[in-house]
Amino acid sequence: MSVLIKNARIITAVDDYRADVYIEDEQVSVIGNDLQMEADTIIDAQGKYLFPGGIDPHTHFDMPFGGTVSADNFETGTRAAAFGGTTTIIDFAIQTMGKSALEGLDTWHAKAEGNTAIDYGFHMIITDMTGNRMNELGMLVDRGITSYKLFTAYPGVLYMDDGMIYNTMQKAGEMGALICVHAENGIVIDEIVKKAVRDGKTAPKWHALTRPTRMEAEAVHRTISIAEVAGSPLYIVHLSSSDALEQVARARDRGLPVYAETCPQYLFLDLNNYEHDGFEGAKYVMSPPLREKWNQEELWKGLKTGDIQAVSTDHCPFRMSDQKILGKDVFTKIPNGAPGVENRMSLIFQGGVVESRISLNRFVEITSTSAAKLFGLFPKKGTIAVGSDADLVIFDPNRKETISVNNPCTHHMNVDYNSYEGIQVKGFSETVISRGKVIIQDGEYVGKKGDGRFIKRGLLSK
Amino acid sequence: MSVLIKNARIITAVDDYRADVYIEDEQVSVIGNDLQMEADTIIDAQGKYLFPGGIDPHTHFDMPFGGTVSADNFETGTRAAAFGGTTTIIDFAIQTMGKSALEGLDTWHAKAEGNTAIDYGFHMIITDMTGNRMNELGMLVDRGITSYKLFTAYPGVLYMDDGMIYNTMQKAGEMGALICVHAENGIVIDEIVKKAVRDGKTAPKWHALTRPTRMEAEAVHRTISIAEVAGSPLYIVHLSSSDALEQVARARDRGLPVYAETCPQYLFLDLNNYEHDGFEGAKYVMSPPLREKWNQEELWKGLKTGDIQAVSTDHCPFRMSDQKILGKDVFTKIPNGAPGVENRMSLIFQGGVVESRISLNRFVEITSTSAAKLFGLFPKKGTIAVGSDADLVIFDPNRKETISVNNPCTHHMNVDYNSYEGIQVKGFSETVISRGKVIIQDGEYVGKKGDGRFIKRGLLSK
Amino acid sequence: MSVLIKNARIITAVDDYRADVYIEDEQVSVIGNDLQMEADTIIDAQGKYLFPGGIDPHTHFDMPFGGTVSADNFETGTRAAAFGGTTTIIDFAIQTMGKSALEGLDTWHAKAEGNTAIDYGFHMIITDMTGNRMNELGMLVDRGITSYKLFTAYPGVLYMDDGMIYNTMQKAGEMGALICVHAENGIVIDEIVKKAVRDGKTAPKWHALTRPTRMEAEAVHRTISIAEVAGSPLYIVHLSSSDALEQVARARDRGLPVYAETCPQYLFLDLNNYEHDGFEGAKYVMSPPLREKWNQEELWKGLKTGDIQAVSTDHCPFRMSDQKILGKDVFTKIPNGAPGVENRMSLIFQGGVVESRISLNRFVEITSTSAAKLFGLFPKKGTIAVGSDADLVIFDPNRKETISVNNPCTHHMNVDYNSYEGIQVKGFSETVISRGKVIIQDGEYVGKKGDGRFIKRGLLSK
Amino acid sequence: MSVLIKNARIITAVDDYRADVYIEDEQVSVIGNDLQMEADTIIDAQGKYLFPGGIDPHTHFDMPFGGTVSADNFETGTRAAAFGGTTTIIDFAIQTMGKSALEGLDTWHAKAEGNTAIDYGFHMIITDMTGNRMNELGMLVDRGITSYKLFTAYPGVLYMDDGMIYNTMQKAGEMGALICVHAENGIVIDEIVKKAVRDGKTAPKWHALTRPTRMEAEAVHRTISIAEVAGSPLYIVHLSSSDALEQVARARDRGLPVYAETCPQYLFLDLNNYEHDGFEGAKYVMSPPLREKWNQEELWKGLKTGDIQAVSTDHCPFRMSDQKILGKDVFTKIPNGAPGVENRMSLIFQGGVVESRISLNRFVEITSTSAAKLFGLFPKKGTIAVGSDADLVIFDPNRKETISVNNPCTHHMNVDYNSYEGIQVKGFSETVISRGKVIIQDGEYVGKKGDGRFIKRGLLSK
Repeated sequence: MSVLIKNARIITAVDDYRADVYIEDEQVSVIGNDLQMEADTIIDAQGKYLFPGGIDPHTHFDMPFGGTVSADNFETGTRAAAFGGTTTIIDFAIQTMGKSALEGLDTWHAKAEGNTAIDYGFHMIITDMTGNRMNELGMLVDRGITSYKLFTAYPGVLYMDDGMIYNTMQKAGEMGALICVHAENGIVIDEIVKKAVRDGKTAPKWHALTRPTRMEAEAVHRTISIAEVAGSPLYIVHLSSSDALEQVARARDRGLPVYAETCPQYLFLDLNNYEHDGFEGAKYVMSPPLREKWNQEELWKGLKTGDIQAVSTDHCPFRMSDQKILGKDVFTKIPNGAPGVENRMSLIFQGGVVESRISLNRFVEITSTSAAKLFGLFPKKGTIAVGSDADLVIFDPNRKETISVNNPCTHHMNVDYNSYEGIQVKGFSETVISRGKVIIQDGEYVGKKGDGRFIKRGLLSK
Repeated sequence: MSVLIKNARIITAVDDYRADVYIEDEQVSVIGNDLQMEADTIIDAQGKYLFPGGIDPHTHFDMPFGGTVSADNFETGTRAAAFGGTTTIIDFAIQTMGKSALEGLDTWHAKAEGNTAIDYGFHMIITDMTGNRMNELGMLVDRGITSYKLFTAYPGVLYMDDGMIYNTMQKAGEMGALICVHAENGIVIDEIVKKAVRDGKTAPKWHALTRPTRMEAEAVHRTISIAEVAGSPLYIVHLSSSDALEQVARARDRGLPVYAETCPQYLFLDLNNYEHDGFEGAKYVMSPPLREKWNQEELWKGLKTGDIQAVSTDHCPFRMSDQKILGKDVFTKIPNGAPGVENRMSLIFQGGVVESRISLNRFVEITSTSAAKLFGLFPKKGTIAVGSDADLVIFDPNRKETISVNNPCTHHMNVDYNSYEGIQVKGFSETVISRGKVIIQDGEYVGKKGDGRFIKRGLLSK
Repeated sequence: MSVLIKNARIITAVDDYRADVYIEDEQVSVIGNDLQMEADTIIDAQGKYLFPGGIDPHTHFDMPFGGTVSADNFETGTRAAAFGGTTTIIDFAIQTMGKSALEGLDTWHAKAEGNTAIDYGFHMIITDMTGNRMNELGMLVDRGITSYKLFTAYPGVLYMDDGMIYNTMQKAGEMGALICVHAENGIVIDEIVKKAVRDGKTAPKWHALTRPTRMEAEAVHRTISIAEVAGSPLYIVHLSSSDALEQVARARDRGLPVYAETCPQYLFLDLNNYEHDGFEGAKYVMSPPLREKWNQEELWKGLKTGDIQAVSTDHCPFRMSDQKILGKDVFTKIPNGAPGVENRMSLIFQGGVVESRISLNRFVEITSTSAAKLFGLFPKKGTIAVGSDADLVIFDPNRKETISVNNPCTHHMNVDYNSYEGIQVKGFSETVISRGKVIIQDGEYVGKKGDGRFIKRGLLSK
Repeated sequence: MSVLIKNARIITAVDDYRADVYIEDEQVSVIGNDLQMEADTIIDAQGKYLFPGGIDPHTHFDMPFGGTVSADNFETGTRAAAFGGTTTIIDFAIQTMGKSALEGLDTWHAKAEGNTAIDYGFHMIITDMTGNRMNELGMLVDRGITSYKLFTAYPGVLYMDDGMIYNTMQKAGEMGALICVHAENGIVIDEIVKKAVRDGKTAPKWHALTRPTRMEAEAVHRTISIAEVAGSPLYIVHLSSSDALEQVARARDRGLPVYAETCPQYLFLDLNNYEHDGFEGAKYVMSPPLREKWNQEELWKGLKTGDIQAVSTDHCPFRMSDQKILGKDVFTKIPNGAPGVENRMSLIFQGGVVESRISLNRFVEITSTSAAKLFGLFPKKGTIAVGSDADLVIFDPNRKETISVNNPCTHHMNVDYNSYEGIQVKGFSETVISRGKVIIQDGEYVGKKGDGRFIKRGLLSK
């Protein structure tokens, strides 16, 4: 099947030019002026941008948490992603404590295989690297799992102590794999939480007020320090605050291989979202929590200066009706997480490009290229170049939408609220191509379950 | 005339892939897998890199200085540049104090027109922006001169006071033009120099010892501060020291549009070069001077972290035999400057890529793409993309050369010494194409005087 | 004449204890428990603090400025100072450009001699250090003038260029004298001012809006850099902003001998003061101007952390009725300066001690001891110790006053307004002793013109 | 018993003057010019400094460690301290894990009571603050134990996790008590150590090479962050490296109540000390270990700028002959610690005052006054003022000694080596007075066991 895209304005992380793009065998085959080639499908992209498909390196589909399971599975979640212009996601497989990481990987493969609309990979959440388990890291690399997430939060559940973190980092560093860290000092936070609950502070907002930014910055500094001693690169997930960013910026100024992602929720939402009446604040119960509003501009600055490399969603939705409500009596029982995989590209285009904070090239870099390079997907993913996978988004820079759970253009996620309810965006994905196949055509889903494939990822591009 | 390059490994600031490139009408026309197209010239680039032609944004050809004139004119200088893989230079036209800037521009056009091997543009050195002269800035923009260089050094010659700097920056900021600054506190340095000369410290090394790094950092901080108040972007030329870099890094951490270039001399040479016997040190008399060796690694770090955007040469050669010798009795009479336009690409490839300090993509970015974007040449120059000028370098990553005034492969500059004498590099430009015309073929010059054209530059890409 | 102070709570920059103090021959002679000694005067200080007399190292009495003369002369000014608990001031003698500094000193001696209520010294404002004039610095040291003030502001009036600053600093550094700098980039500010006036922005507030904090920080950084190269300590006068403080803090973190004072106006007043109706804003026209309110807390932090060493007043009053009014049509004609010498101690006690920002010891240090040590008055002044001058303040920590031009307790300055109108302070000077003589007794002036003597100051205590 | 000291040059943290000092009832009673008072003892201090007695806030006398006990007990240790001019020590009582802190205190009281030459207090090493134990902190305050030491090092022995650290800090913050931290990431260090031992790296120097400075800086940053959230002041003990100091300096620049001590070993010794032949390096096995030499000057800078407040010794001697030798086969078995309590004052006088790094006043501050203020001993201890304890040192600034285990003037410690062997100092304690009693007279011990008393300490002076 071949596709010819005419008159596109092609934007990559560095280029911006007009040309035709010819797609064959799932890949970009020819880029040229006024191509006269036959094709099964011809699309006129006049007046539109042609972007590399978005990459969301942080989703949690079908994930058990606190006695329930995240509301989007790999079918509904990847389809919603596709609507939003994202053509690759990297989800998190989980090692059960005391069991083999490979077993955990198998479980996640079973969840995803044959179910996704777009291509996908896995990071591995590592919870236990005692004794011989360390050998499993090499096996994971062989299976295309080249990044591992460690938690300094959630003691007793996912928490890993500094010694195991050091050992895991050292091994990853030797192999060229990348360590990702959820950086909050969960040990201290648990004490703060206990005290709050003792004092009767149980409403959703106390989730945020018991997780101070200094405890995020602390864990960022700590894991950077350990990574430096271990000789390992480090990627901080869902960085949420200026305090934490300052630590990343200092490390990068020193030339250390430290990277970070932030998420739309930290760029568009803030502490005030918890002040809604009643239990509404539960929608925003996630970790790290939303921060004071002034942090947003600092995070945008980080995206501009390059101290933050990527924007992911940490998509992990729970329905208000029957899931978030579990924490009605006390915030500690509210499942942590919120939806977002569908709205990322438009939100960042709005806040970044439309509001003049970043360039078009930088938009592509933070929504696609950087993640591809850091997570071993490049150059198959993350760019528009001959030989790359034809994962492409035809994006209308002028179309306006108001994000809402009730707007059929902006909400296909399997959850009963949208975090960005009421926010207006300019710029919208119109047609989405995944490995040469049109899966979203003028806003309609024309693909099918199982179009997406598992991607064995390579090691960090230096 | 058409050219087809087969089997190239194409490297841009972001991409790295294999494809064929078809050139027509001076531009890249098609990039594709295994192109079957007819062409006047077919080149097999198997095993080589295909880079965007180098851009050297800082040369001084045919420039009057201290009673003499720099030894390379536009013919010899641009030809040497071409040998080294550079296909565009931006030279500095000079406004004579008290005269129209446009007159100065005319003078430089006359020097260059019809004489160059490669394309060229001009920055304008502004020395006098009193009264109505400010209007000339707009006229310069219309003529494709979109960047202005101001001096905080050389009082009485090129020095501009802070008030005029502020006014010029403000005007440039309004227009979207870019201010370049030679940042050294020349007023203080002159006092230090006077004292040194009074004390009989007249050997070449005293040129360096009278220009402390703190006086570079001071002028960097000062002009950044003025630019911030004036609302202007700022580009620091020939940044030479860690102290100065620290100021740039801090400004960039704050999100200010501050940019900097460094030069190979500050990355490869150091204060010890002045310790040679007799008058040899005069070879390295330039401003800023060479610094203590430890600064080199800090500058490389700046190139890696992105705090330094570009590498230029500040090529400004004077023959030892009859020009540098003018300062035999006292260093203040030595013409300031040194050659380098020819050796930049190989030096940076060696120190950067071969020695594992930066990636291939970053090599392209700092030798070509960044300068193109900052100085309004992009996307005509600085990338390999459909519609861009076919300024291309086929680069052999495995060829070794020892740079020497006596090595016919490394020295075509019209000057009787080479600053990098004896340094071995791996990686060398083999074939150079300028706007679709092969001008260097397997190391031989096959172009002719006048091949190059003046490029009207646009404004800073945001 | 002897004085015995009973039951005092003695506070120095380090100590806090109860004892009796016996004064003889103008000095503290004995400190002890329950002293049984005869004395001409016995004062019971039960319930009061006994502080070293305040030192205000920055006043401008009887100073010509903009065609008028500051409203307090040495008689009225020093008497007001005494009311406020200040027993030493250091005023600024001025070298007329092109004339000998010694002549300037003579002029100021003539103004002060026989007229003051308290002891005094002079800094010298240096405007011209060309040629042989540099020798005058040594002569000034011999005459007890061991600190020199240089201006980066006021071009054409007091401004000194960087070269002369460097030379003066180098000489001062050799001698062990201290350079004081008024740090604002006057050259750039003049351009901003010209443009504002051209645009019809003539109201008093434009005085502030044309003097950005970055232009203060710039001059601070610049003079620190020059001082470092010159090998000279440096004292920044009337530091007004967080931006400027940041530069001082960085220099001090590097271990450089850099010091700074701030003033009550920058701790208690802010940009909003210019928003008063009509011409009221003229009261606050001083340089540097008042800043955005958030800077206040940063300056207090500097006083707490030790990055700011002293609090002076920069007392330089002009009557609204016939002096400030000169600038009715355009702010550039408003004489720069404001009153404050009388209210410093109570204001700093209120903001510092009462409002828990600093300790009692630190209060003494910043109002007296630091200035004594930096300006060569220690240990004669600045402490309570055997052998020190008996310059003492009995201070009632519980007395409240509302500062007002109409409050006979808070305003003895010869000017028709008070900058701190309406501010309530707790803590007030009750009895003031100058070299063993009671000059303020329970709030009444009981001294006489001429009580004060000129103090030949020594060099900077290291 | 009364003492009259004539002709002293009295130095406090702020003052420097000549006077006579009269002592009665263990306290300074009168300070005055030429006192004509009768006294049991009259001492002429002409030509000498009179300092407040030194305070060493960090000793480990009679301390169990690794199966042995530190070689100095309270008798020998405090006598050696007295010889060196130290009149107060604060030792560390230890809570046994799982037992009451009060029991630990009783044990240490039993070790000290009736045995010391000088006054003493205790910090409490807290190892277990679960459940109701937190109430013991208040009881400790009542008993004069107002500072608690927590360990991030020594997992399984003294290590406390971040949650318990947070809770303890919060409680201490509420009470106004001070938390002291031994800051090294012991969890990571243990992994590094295990690997080193596995690799056969067992010589004493590996003790140092397995404890990187980044792991000290990490723990400093972490505990500062936790203290900030907990609302507690923090005192870092035995800070050893520039990396760690940088964290303290940043916190202090932000205005946080963070304090630090360093020790003579980090100022005079360095990593090279481990390179001695054979097992000699064991002498310097302490935690943190000695660092690369360049750190020394950074620590001195910290003492100068005020970022480090005090110098303690961490005196914890083990004999080479039968104690250090326990680790002959592997460095992990070497008892950690070294002697120093006797040599602190002369070493700091030499390195600080004689070598012109700090002033005389600052010498007193860092050897005595700061510790007195931080640890609730002021104004009884730490100054020379009426009403203060007569703890005084008559110090000969001109006397030279070469420190040696064989020099009877410099070594009274009960251990068979001296860490500072061969270092020459100028400046020596001659006569030492403890609460009005001469205990060292011209270098001879004239006191007796039990002269010293336990001091109930107050809370931190703000």
